[in-house]
Amino acid sequence: MTKRVAIIGAGPSGLAQLRAFQSAAQKGAEIPEVVCFEKQANWGGLWNYTWRTGVDENGEPVHCSMYRYLWTNGPKEGLEFADYSFEEHFGKQIASYPPRAVMVDYIEGRVNKAGVRDWIRFSSVVRWVEFDPIAQDFTITVHDMKTDHVYKERFDHVICASGHFSSPNVPDYPGFDQFYGRIIHAHDFRDAREFAGQDVLVVGSSYSAEDIGSQCWKYGAKTVTSCYRSAPMGFNWPDNWEEKQALVRVEGKTAFFKDGTSKPVDAIILCTGYKHYFPFLPDDLRLKTKNRLATADLYKGVVYVHNPALFYLGMQDQWFTFNMFDAQAWYVRDIIMGRIAVPADKAVLLADVAEREEREVASDDVKYAIKYQGAYVKELIADTDYPNFDVDGACEAFFEWKHHKADDIMAFRNHSYKSVMTGTMAPAHHTPWKDALDDSMEAYLRN
Amino acid sequence: MTKRVAIIGAGPSGLAQLRAFQSAAQKGAEIPEVVCFEKQANWGGLWNYTWRTGVDENGEPVHCSMYRYLWTNGPKEGLEFADYSFEEHFGKQIASYPPRAVMVDYIEGRVNKAGVRDWIRFSSVVRWVEFDPIAQDFTITVHDMKTDHVYKERFDHVICASGHFSSPNVPDYPGFDQFYGRIIHAHDFRDAREFAGQDVLVVGSSYSAEDIGSQCWKYGAKTVTSCYRSAPMGFNWPDNWEEKQALVRVEGKTAFFKDGTSKPVDAIILCTGYKHYFPFLPDDLRLKTKNRLATADLYKGVVYVHNPALFYLGMQDQWFTFNMFDAQAWYVRDIIMGRIAVPADKAVLLADVAEREEREVASDDVKYAIKYQGAYVKELIADTDYPNFDVDGACEAFFEWKHHKADDIMAFRNHSYKSVMTGTMAPAHHTPWKDALDDSMEAYLRN
Ligand SMILES: Cc1cc2nc3c(=O)[nH]c(=O)nc-3n(C[C@H](O)[C@H](O)[C@H](O)COP(=O)(O)OP(=O)(O)OC[C@H]3O[C@@H](n4cnc5c(N)ncnc54)[C@H](O)[C@@H]3O)c2cc1C
Ligand SMILES: Cc1cc2nc3c(=O)[nH]c(=O)nc-3n(C[C@H](O)[C@H](O)[C@H](O)COP(=O)(O)OP(=O)(O)OC[C@H]3O[C@@H](n4cnc5c(N)ncnc54)[C@H](O)[C@@H]3O)c2cc1C
Ligand SMILES: NC(=O)c1ccc[n+]([C@@H]2O[C@H](COP(=O)([O-])OP(=O)(O)OC[C@H]3O[C@@H](n4cnc5c(N)ncnc54)[C@H](OP(=O)(O)O)[C@@H]3O)[C@@H](O)[C@H]2O)c1
Ligand SMILES: NC(=O)c1ccc[n+]([C@@H]2O[C@H](COP(=O)([O-])OP(=O)(O)OC[C@H]3O[C@@H](n4cnc5c(N)ncnc54)[C@H](OP(=O)(O)O)[C@@H]3O)[C@@H](O)[C@H]2O)c1
Repeated sequence: MTKRVAIIGAGPSGLAQLRAFQSAAQKGAEIPEVVCFEKQANWGGLWNYTWRTGVDENGEPVHCSMYRYLWTNGPKEGLEFADYSFEEHFGKQIASYPPRAVMVDYIEGRVNKAGVRDWIRFSSVVRWVEFDPIAQDFTITVHDMKTDHVYKERFDHVICASGHFSSPNVPDYPGFDQFYGRIIHAHDFRDAREFAGQDVLVVGSSYSAEDIGSQCWKYGAKTVTSCYRSAPMGFNWPDNWEEKQALVRVEGKTAFFKDGTSKPVDAIILCTGYKHYFPFLPDDLRLKTKNRLATADLYKGVVYVHNPALFYLGMQDQWFTFNMFDAQAWYVRDIIMGRIAVPADKAVLLADVAEREEREVASDDVKYAIKYQGAYVKELIADTDYPNFDVDGACEAFFEWKHHKADDIMAFRNHSYKSVMTGTMAPAHHTPWKDALDDSMEAYLRN
Repeated sequence: MTKRVAIIGAGPSGLAQLRAFQSAAQKGAEIPEVVCFEKQANWGGLWNYTWRTGVDENGEPVHCSMYRYLWTNGPKEGLEFADYSFEEHFGKQIASYPPRAVMVDYIEGRVNKAGVRDWIRFSSVVRWVEFDPIAQDFTITVHDMKTDHVYKERFDHVICASGHFSSPNVPDYPGFDQFYGRIIHAHDFRDAREFAGQDVLVVGSSYSAEDIGSQCWKYGAKTVTSCYRSAPMGFNWPDNWEEKQALVRVEGKTAFFKDGTSKPVDAIILCTGYKHYFPFLPDDLRLKTKNRLATADLYKGVVYVHNPALFYLGMQDQWFTFNMFDAQAWYVRDIIMGRIAVPADKAVLLADVAEREEREVASDDVKYAIKYQGAYVKELIADTDYPNFDVDGACEAFFEWKHHKADDIMAFRNHSYKSVMTGTMAPAHHTPWKDALDDSMEAYLRN
């Protein structure tokens, strides 16, 4: 009997999995029956923008953490699909930091070409998954929001591709319940123009803090203050941006910091990261891991060591994104299709995890980390028919990017890099990022 | 063997159920084993305020729909517990429209006295409920957030008291995805001071629209515009409050209305109501009803007709609240304890529902509706040992309240009413509502 495979989520990872199976079928292989459950009404995962915050039209937590005017924060040359280049999609090479709308078009391009949309059940929330040790299969409980109907189906494999940048980590600070201004998490940030003329405080010192602060700055915030717990971002900030030590408490509209200083602020944006969150999984199937390069409990970064019929995609912290998800999806496909064997001895799986963890913590150098994840991508690709590509070349783009950010944080997106898929250099964008207020696809492609 | 009863939710309804069982035990009856699951870290339901919006510290949708500076919108004389008066709790009679903090103190007072806190498992999210037709019992899957552990337990009865004013109904309007200002639902409204100096648009014409608009006005909004789909609220609004026809679309920062006019607005607050939402219930147990006085599918407003071992509390639209939840809880307790019989013939149950529906729609007069729900409270109380009280007198307080609102919407909370429990007249509050900016309990009780 044909195996049945369930994929949870139609974001970049889930779509990579669909494309992986479709590509095998295209080459003549017999593939399992694949069903992808997606709680949103459309595909794209985080990239599927909505103005909604809090809960969605169905009462489910809004998945989208993206916002208007978001451009990629790393060069597109680091994430390009090896089997579907930007040039193939747009008919020309494009600049290196596409805004969200351009990225969505690109993501959709590949899966439209593959013709896998029918494999997806939209507006279908996976409510619960259970493994039956006798039948050795999974029962998935799904809520179809279009018909308000709940049903169950059985599958031989489950691939969890539900993302891990959606459930916000929201710390509490003394005084928050009495603060006179607005407090939101980055997850609920939508339009920087709402903060024009305001004194904005961003809490955190990672990508969201940097990018949301920059958006607010770009769209007219009066001042931006960022504050860090561990270490400052340390960029050459514009004059009206100040980086401070940790937030300690708030009172009325004043924020107090660890260095003893204080400042009036209108809004506080908590850029304090996300949590891996799987409300649909019982203890024996639920991944518990930190946001790191070597996740806990995943052999080869994808096979759940406590039940190797269950897979997770994209659960790592990410330098590489789309092509890493591809590498994982092709690898998982080949395990399911019996082309790659998973060791039967659990000790071997655990040793693999331990080795990855050890190797990750061996250095806290950024270049080391990028190379580490590059090596992981190479390792997986080597075992499948995913098109080989110059991973070291992609790493080089990341190194350059780091330099460009250090040079001028408000100008790094004006740089261009060379595609490792097609060898073509990206053109410079027609307008410096800080002056490009229109983030539509039409505007961006006008090169 | 002792029966096991699960209560979902420790808001006013769930707490009423705990108190109902405890009061029977106090009188010497043998009661079932009662377990109450509450997803929040504390009791009080909607009244348990948090500054958080979106999802809570556990990644679950924030339950609280209340906000700072909220005072009851109906006189406390309409909601008073018949077995625990305001005078008993505060040691004196207090003014008629207590702010949230005062109400929380009162709600807690009764259950602290009853000593039922130990019956509640806090930070415990009910993820799934299933009925086993062979064993004739329910299996509840619970996620204990304190230990991040999921477990199952079996119960003979389930009482769903999870509320229905938490999952927002959020309509989409053309242009929302490109609007330059802030868009939130009433559910995410927290501090009116955030809107000081702003042009605020509230969408809707019911209690939330009225009260959130009034808060914004009280705390310094530049203008308030409200807009209605069916009918205007039609109060005598202050000069800087305009009531308009339905919102049609937005563009940039401008809102366009059905009457062809438009207006610049900084923020849009969608006061568009809530949905009954039970993500933890399968098709055969899930109540599907509109927000009305005669809910669908509930015999006597509490017994689920498709499975009479399952009960729902507080699922009606509400004039009466706390004492109606009490009436329901005492009634459900007596069914479970075999003191009241539920007809075995489903047709009888359905006929009861149909009769209530017919009677509700017989008139759309407000007084009729209040009396209708008063009659329902009387009907239930008559069959249990819940202290009898002057329901008609409570209705009179509601009628007066309606007049006071029509007279002056920004002053109705300055009025006082007589308790039907103790016969005492409430004192006038020391400060008119519009000037009372401090909503703390200390400030309110300073009479
Ligand atoms: C603000 C932000 C900006 C980013 N910018 C970039 C960038 O510029 N470049 C880059 O390469 N990466 C970026 N990322 C990283 C991002 O993680 C990846 O690009 C990518 O979206 C991850 O894909 P995914 O499929 O693993 O997860 P997601 O994109 O999160 O998709 C998961 C899918 O699972 C669905 N789902 C979840 N739960 C259920 C359920 N119970 N039932 C059914 N469906 C469910 C969701 O609806 C969603 O569609 C960004 C991330 C964030 C948060
Ligand atoms: C903005 C607003 C203002 C109001 N003001 C008044 C007023 O002034 N006077 C008045 O009388 N009434 C008022 N109400 C009406 C309100 O409905 C009642 O006062 C009361 O809170 C309803 O009690 P409940 O227990 O039925 O529901 P809730 O108070 O909503 O309590 C339900 C409980 O169930 C818990 N729960 C939900 N899902 C789960 C789950 N899966 N697992 C575990 N626990 C769960 C929740 O955390 C919550 O504690 C107001 C309502 C709103 C929205
Ligand atoms: N395309 C884009 O432009 C864009 C924009 C935003 C985000 N992203 C992506 O989104 C993902 C998530 O990035 P992120 O920045 O949201 O999360 P993140 O990288 O996990 O960073 C979390 C930040 O929050 C801080 N933090 C956590 N808990 C805190 C607490 N209790 N108090 C104070 N600070 C706390 C951390 O500080 P410590 O260092 O002290 O731990 C860290 O600075 C990344 O993949 C990123 O690339 C992309
Ligand atoms: N204590 C307090 O001060 C206080 C404050 C706020 C709320 N509450 C309580 O909270 C509960 C809920 O009240 P609520 O006002 O939030 O909800 P509600 O009474 O259900 O009213 C919903 C409103 O939204 C409108 N609406 C619904 N869908 C719409 C759409 N698609 N487009 C435009 N308008 C739409 C409805 O208009 P139609 O009339 O056209 O249907 C109605 O005016 C009540 O029990 C209330 O007493 C209390």
